[in-house]
Amino acid sequence: MDRRQFSQLLALLTTSLGVSSLTNGHEMNELPAHWHGKENIGFLIYPGFTALDMVGPHYMLGSLLGAKTFIVARDKNVVVSDTGLSFVPAVTFDECPPSLDILFVPGGSQGTIDAMRDQATIDFLKSRGRSSKYVTSVCTGSLLLAAAGLLQGYRATSHWVAVDSLAEFGAIPVKDRVVIDRNRITGGGVTAGIDFGLTLLAKLRDDRYAQAVQLLAEYDPDPPFDAGSPYKAPQDLVKLVSGMFPSFLSDVSSIAKKN
Amino acid sequence: MDRRQFSQLLALLTTSLGVSSLTNGHEMNELPAHWHGKENIGFLIYPGFTALDMVGPHYMLGSLLGAKTFIVARDKNVVVSDTGLSFVPAVTFDECPPSLDILFVPGGSQGTIDAMRDQATIDFLKSRGRSSKYVTSVCTGSLLLAAAGLLQGYRATSHWVAVDSLAEFGAIPVKDRVVIDRNRITGGGVTAGIDFGLTLLAKLRDDRYAQAVQLLAEYDPDPPFDAGSPYKAPQDLVKLVSGMFPSFLSDVSSIAKKN
Repeated sequence: MDRRQFSQLLALLTTSLGVSSLTNGHEMNELPAHWHGKENIGFLIYPGFTALDMVGPHYMLGSLLGAKTFIVARDKNVVVSDTGLSFVPAVTFDECPPSLDILFVPGGSQGTIDAMRDQATIDFLKSRGRSSKYVTSVCTGSLLLAAAGLLQGYRATSHWVAVDSLAEFGAIPVKDRVVIDRNRITGGGVTAGIDFGLTLLAKLRDDRYAQAVQLLAEYDPDPPFDAGSPYKAPQDLVKLVSGMFPSFLSDVSSIAKKN
Repeated sequence: MDRRQFSQLLALLTTSLGVSSLTNGHEMNELPAHWHGKENIGFLIYPGFTALDMVGPHYMLGSLLGAKTFIVARDKNVVVSDTGLSFVPAVTFDECPPSLDILFVPGGSQGTIDAMRDQATIDFLKSRGRSSKYVTSVCTGSLLLAAAGLLQGYRATSHWVAVDSLAEFGAIPVKDRVVIDRNRITGGGVTAGIDFGLTLLAKLRDDRYAQAVQLLAEYDPDPPFDAGSPYKAPQDLVKLVSGMFPSFLSDVSSIAKKN
């Protein structure tokens, strides 16, 4: 790699990371050529989706040198997340590149049910799911993939409250943070998107690339409590949280039965 | 707390978490009255901010029973983050409640420099910083607080690349994931926002409340690598990442000198 190629790479890297400029005197010739790619990555969003499910992976995959990310929605309307954040989609289903390298689907609760019942959303997932190099999700996004028939016979995970429901669509539920089965990569609930994103970075580039982005994201987690999984949290809180979703799970079942 | 109060609480909880509905048969009378608050929480956004800095804390604080969250920007234009996500602000500086319980500021790189140089943004921070019960930030958001004179004499943290620059504004830099000094609460780089959010939840309600939200967020981190801090990452990667920000740090210095 010569100087010119190197500075092009660097310009791309700094753009994708939002970094303004670099001193010319700084030598970073350790940046290898295979760190540069050209993936098209589509992030589906829909009313009521969980923003953190998407924004964690978007940070990670948005740091891929040379890759393009697309925020995709049914139409150009503002999409409001389940906690009230308003996003403007970049492209509609029709405008999204017909062939994606990575298709990503975030989760949610009632919004995810509504999306599972929306034929245009299911058709979009079926179409891009066929051609994508990787078909991926975080949290209950895997239920949307499953409803589009994209997880039949695949090992996959989901939010701990919902993971068993994957079986109703012919998937094999796995209670793990990130599950890889062939080209299907699924993450657990909400914050698992960060571990998912780093795992995917390493797969698309290499371990060192993922470590550089982990360092940039200062991802050295230090939760003030150890209550992040149903195996670790106080059991009364597990009961409280899992009790919040009965209609969600029965809605998922009724969708699975119609499939 | 009687049944009616309880169901009101529950309705609020399910709304704020985006949960659709609950079975009447499910008893959750363990939900204590002091879990209900009425905070006004303002999240500043600005062009080039890092979305994950804000969306992590927004998930956590958006789960506060009875609280209201406001996405605040200079004007009503769409705000594009450093990785290209487009957000619609809910209120302008003028429309934001004059007195906030929590003022939150996310970081970024060039966008943060531009915001530090924007008088309207600094004036907004000065005004709400005076009246807020808690003045908070994640990542280089603390530099914005510092530029508004809100961290003089306070212990505070920032992204590891930038934390030492806080001293130029009269703050006391602390290399920790979440730093609390009186009513100033600052988090480290990007992903520290999740630990920050949980810490603040526990302060505003109690440990059990924070644990319930941690469980809902399935925050049981399992990074595939241990490279998230400059003390743990390979030293050549530390050099690579810290070398990406020389103009950022000199811009911060020149702003500090003018203050």
